[in-house]
Amino acid sequence: MRRVRIVGIGMGVEHLTAEAETAIRGVDYVIAAQKSDEDPLLEARRALCRDLGVPLVAVPDPPRDRDAPVDYPGAVRDWHDARAAAYERVLLERDGDAAFLVWGDPAFYDSTIRIVEQVAERGRVPFSYDVVPGVSAPQLLAARHRLVLHEVGRPVLFTTGRRLLEDVAAGHDNLVVLLDGRLVCALLDPDTWDVWWGANLGAPGERLVAGRLGAVLPEISAARAAAAAEAGWVMDVYLLRRA
Amino acid sequence: MRRVRIVGIGMGVEHLTAEAETAIRGVDYVIAAQKSDEDPLLEARRALCRDLGVPLVAVPDPPRDRDAPVDYPGAVRDWHDARAAAYERVLLERDGDAAFLVWGDPAFYDSTIRIVEQVAERGRVPFSYDVVPGVSAPQLLAARHRLVLHEVGRPVLFTTGRRLLEDVAAGHDNLVVLLDGRLVCALLDPDTWDVWWGANLGAPGERLVAGRLGAVLPEISAARAAAAAEAGWVMDVYLLRRA
Repeated sequence: MRRVRIVGIGMGVEHLTAEAETAIRGVDYVIAAQKSDEDPLLEARRALCRDLGVPLVAVPDPPRDRDAPVDYPGAVRDWHDARAAAYERVLLERDGDAAFLVWGDPAFYDSTIRIVEQVAERGRVPFSYDVVPGVSAPQLLAARHRLVLHEVGRPVLFTTGRRLLEDVAAGHDNLVVLLDGRLVCALLDPDTWDVWWGANLGAPGERLVAGRLGAVLPEISAARAAAAAEAGWVMDVYLLRRA
Repeated sequence: MRRVRIVGIGMGVEHLTAEAETAIRGVDYVIAAQKSDEDPLLEARRALCRDLGVPLVAVPDPPRDRDAPVDYPGAVRDWHDARAAAYERVLLERDGDAAFLVWGDPAFYDSTIRIVEQVAERGRVPFSYDVVPGVSAPQLLAARHRLVLHEVGRPVLFTTGRRLLEDVAAGHDNLVVLLDGRLVCALLDPDTWDVWWGANLGAPGERLVAGRLGAVLPEISAARAAAAAEAGWVMDVYLLRRA
């Protein structure tokens, strides 16, 4: 039976685990989405595959309707379907074991596991699949700021920018926020929250800012713009804790 | 300035990142708590240090009042103080850079960062410190069950057994539960929750169970007892999601 491996590669080559390296070296090829003509995350995967001696098959990413706030799960579903069909084509065209390299960890805000499940369910390519964990962005954020992500014996909510205001209204006072391209935290009371923020963590041009929300928001906005200008892309994550 | 490094080593040697390995090789010694005469987690650290050629200094762990439910943060504080004093003694007696090896990741339900902060604040040993992230137990749980820890665009709460009933009462329907030695989930409605459970993840004798809570609870209890009997210790973690 062919194997498909979903491998968390962490936030940079220094986070590659021994298990992830062995998994990647052991497959016949890596499948990677190409999101644009010059996709810096594809180039990073390409460099890693070159180092490990494994060919990379780039698959143009189906367009995604990011402006569909009303039917968000529906928009995601359509996009997953189109990705599953694209990956299935590669597996039909090429024999052997394949790996997907997931930035960070496949368990957090990543679609690879769900899409591979869909390819399996379509039933046209028989394969088994497994998952190799990797260091995620919230963990690197915590390490850089030398933070535990919660207070002693207390919980931490991992959530998205889209849900942040609702989660705060529900009483949460300790949140890791991902996928917030609009810095929704700017809408919170600037005097009662502390923030630990990071962008492009693990990549050249990484930025870090921490402090009372109202005091550091301008610095965060400026650092975000600078990171995007330098790298051509920006991914950020932050911990919010009620002061 | 001396360096102290707090290194997440993941859930087994296969999870050691390149960065963690370099960090450990670069220090003069590793400080590790000894919790009992035959502490299997100390022995695992000892084996790792032997492989990497770094001496290990075992520090008998101060006793902790685990039966103090009323003043839980207070009991934890006393224990942290005693640990900080013990680690400070080692740093005063031995020159050079030191590392602490944290099972999993220092950012989740681990006291090492807070204790090292306390040693720094005591001011008797000047040093700088940093944190290296590692793969955590919830991530290995997710990988083994091939799970994303949340549904599309939805949050996940990381919490403890001690708080589980309160968090469920507050409306949470997707929770990663740690530090639950008493399987508090047995008190939830057995028909409306799915559970993905794992014990001693990454260690020999790892156990995994998944299914509708009421249907698999007996299997989880039995697997937990078997893992404890086999390894001499048991650490478990689970994802609970409303069905």
